Amino acid sequence: MKRTVYFVSESTGITAETMGHSLLSQFVTVEFEQVYMPYINTEARAHALTQRMREAQERDGVRPIVFTTLLNEEIATILKAGPCFYLELYERFVEPLSQELGVPPSRQSGLSHAITRPSMYTKRIDAINFAMANDDGVRPDRYRHADVVLAGVSRSGKTPTCLYLAMHYGLRSANHPITEEDFARGDLPSELIEAKGRVFGLTIDPQRLQAIREERRRGSEYASAERCRRDIRDAQAMFKRHGIPALNTTSQSIEEIASHILRAVKSPNGSMA
Amino acid sequence: MKRTVYFVSESTGITAETMGHSLLSQFVTVEFEQVYMPYINTEARAHALTQRMREAQERDGVRPIVFTTLLNEEIATILKAGPCFYLELYERFVEPLSQELGVPPSRQSGLSHAITRPSMYTKRIDAINFAMANDDGVRPDRYRHADVVLAGVSRSGKTPTCLYLAMHYGLRSANHPITEEDFARGDLPSELIEAKGRVFGLTIDPQRLQAIREERRRGSEYASAERCRRDIRDAQAMFKRHGIPALNTTSQSIEEIASHILRAVKSPNGSMA
Repeated sequence: MKRTVYFVSESTGITAETMGHSLLSQFVTVEFEQVYMPYINTEARAHALTQRMREAQERDGVRPIVFTTLLNEEIATILKAGPCFYLELYERFVEPLSQELGVPPSRQSGLSHAITRPSMYTKRIDAINFAMANDDGVRPDRYRHADVVLAGVSRSGKTPTCLYLAMHYGLRSANHPITEEDFARGDLPSELIEAKGRVFGLTIDPQRLQAIREERRRGSEYASAERCRRDIRDAQAMFKRHGIPALNTTSQSIEEIASHILRAVKSPNGSMA
Repeated sequence: MKRTVYFVSESTGITAETMGHSLLSQFVTVEFEQVYMPYINTEARAHALTQRMREAQERDGVRPIVFTTLLNEEIATILKAGPCFYLELYERFVEPLSQELGVPPSRQSGLSHAITRPSMYTKRIDAINFAMANDDGVRPDRYRHADVVLAGVSRSGKTPTCLYLAMHYGLRSANHPITEEDFARGDLPSELIEAKGRVFGLTIDPQRLQAIREERRRGSEYASAERCRRDIRDAQAMFKRHGIPALNTTSQSIEEIASHILRAVKSPNGSMA
């Protein structure tokens, strides 16, 4: 049985979506059609969504599920009256938190993902620009300006992880692909070694690397089992020699890799264990 | 008074952080020191965090706040016994949802940001690669392969928004800077016009554009008030001529711009109103 799910908010809806999606992940046997509904901030839009609920109920044979965060009362009343299982994610935490803090909540919607602190926001945008300009080892002389440098063989997830760290945590992230040149020299470039403490290695299982490379250059030496094994073995030896912590990214998502790196950035010895 | 806040999880902690951060945004008058604590998945790490809570309490003169999602019982027990205001964000929704769905929850941690659907994950990675390869109008011939093309004058937020749409929603996003060439010709390039329906315009207030440009090229004609006004006026005229919906991005965050575009992508007439 398929269940339709709406993530609803007066503003971006990112909180409703993140939390709702997370809760749904507890029910792996159910198929969900997840629909993102930001900016439901007028009664007309609320009524239109109620109409969609009816259609979903008709189609699925069961009422849809609605996750919301902090809607104004008029809009909440319209949605609750619709054919749905309604879960407000926010309200029950606001009051206890208000008591603990000793101040009333603002009850204003949309502050979570608005630019409330311009300096932090500018830092994020600068970090994204830095990550774009320092992708794929184009400027090793800039590694000294980076908060984080990810090093690894090609196709180990460096670029998306750098962009994620920049976008969400404002970290100036560069990445260094370990190249044929590095392998031939038998060592990492000096710019990378000098950035030690901010350098993190990404590794990957040889079989997985081979599968990825096969997709890009089928039948090439670059995609051979032997070459993949050798690249990874040599890269790991270089990381070890310089005390660079390394993380196996096989079957890890960008978010998981980024979280491990954030932990390591803050840990006293930079360990990713 | 400053309050220290920990976002704690056995896995990435992204849900705890998103929801916790969102709740805190309701209390604009309080200063929070927000600390991200992913992978608290051993009793040793839980005890170490309890020690940090004590230090925070000493420093702040008040107990820290802890937001958690779905910790195993041993770890939850250790943290709850620490000097903190403890808010579990997850548990109270799992049971009602389970009843509605008629299946028990898996109680497994970390599924929300893991690769549970490889095809969806691959789509996101492909979209990021597409956005990286199609930034800044480098390949207009590829606009026809894009899910979304953002067009706008330089510095209107196109690049970070494209990356965000790709990373979070798997949308193949390209962006087109409206260039001196376009202005001289008095029209958008044909590749962009042909992509209509997937093209969204970003505009910005002239004063804000001028401030941004002044930072990059102080005193230049490019950064002059007159030039900024003209660029924006001409761009808007081109959008209007071709029925391209446009959004003013002044003081909007990447997340807000992306949410408006997602709404528009799905709306029958592509309206961003």
